[in-house]
Amino acid sequence: MIESRIKAAVRDVADFPTPGIIFKDITPILKDAALCTDITAALATQVAALQIDVVAGIESRGFLFGLALANYLGVPFVPVRKAGKLPYKTVRQEYALEYGTATLEVHEDAFSSGQRVLVHDDLLATGGTVLAASALISRLGASVTGYSFIISLDFLNGRQRLSPFSNAVHTLAGWQH
Amino acid sequence: MIESRIKAAVRDVADFPTPGIIFKDITPILKDAALCTDITAALATQVAALQIDVVAGIESRGFLFGLALANYLGVPFVPVRKAGKLPYKTVRQEYALEYGTATLEVHEDAFSSGQRVLVHDDLLATGGTVLAASALISRLGASVTGYSFIISLDFLNGRQRLSPFSNAVHTLAGWQH
Repeated sequence: MIESRIKAAVRDVADFPTPGIIFKDITPILKDAALCTDITAALATQVAALQIDVVAGIESRGFLFGLALANYLGVPFVPVRKAGKLPYKTVRQEYALEYGTATLEVHEDAFSSGQRVLVHDDLLATGGTVLAASALISRLGASVTGYSFIISLDFLNGRQRLSPFSNAVHTLAGWQH
Repeated sequence: MIESRIKAAVRDVADFPTPGIIFKDITPILKDAALCTDITAALATQVAALQIDVVAGIESRGFLFGLALANYLGVPFVPVRKAGKLPYKTVRQEYALEYGTATLEVHEDAFSSGQRVLVHDDLLATGGTVLAASALISRLGASVTGYSFIISLDFLNGRQRLSPFSNAVHTLAGWQH
């Protein structure tokens, strides 16, 4: 039910950010408050068995439902940010993009040792960014217990790339092609 | 009450992003789910009389409580983003930073004509970014009806800069110096 509502709301934008890519635009979802509220509840239901201690959300779109989900579950939210944005002492992780590299950071006091962390972003594509976030979380002594996305582009096989950290990869709406 | 809880949670970080600046780090707030939930409710109470149709949140930290507030109010959320991030057709507004310029964008179909828009960000400093967002919203035919922040640095006089758009500038915790 929620999957068909999400698929009906998402807007395909051709040739963004580069020619040949069909981008899944979630801004129509954000315009529908009832759908947003139901998405947050559905994300929480999917991860209810994981006994999550913390939700880590990836900048920027992972901040939207990441905080909502953490608040719904009653657990802390940790922002994983692009380089240079977090003010306190950080640990950083570089990762490869199609062209060049990018860097993610988290505060060094973001997690307690052994905490069970759910990594959230709006969309799973190849998984490169969440993989880098997972490496950061592990380096800080916390445990990547699962993944939560609204949308997954299953034909890009991101799920397999995340399996070294966790096979608990949850998504509300998957595209097979 | 909420003001003292916010002030107790916020962490001052010296010399970020540049020497001499004391940065208000909100990440400790995000770790406290009960405080986050109370902040969202308090933001909604402050703007209850404004009859808001839409909440516009500024990338990135304005995405956190911006979506939560919109969902709480039961109204659409519109992301105002940095240049090059939004996939569909956009309008853009350049604005001055201390050194150089930056550009904000919003989708051209983000608002309907005459809609009453609440602009949200986590923190009001000089107001330059929200002023640029307000110009964009006006250009699209919507009305900037008020502003909502968690924190305001009142000694920087951002409130006065926003007054051409609206005097309804709400904040939960203000610093006088």
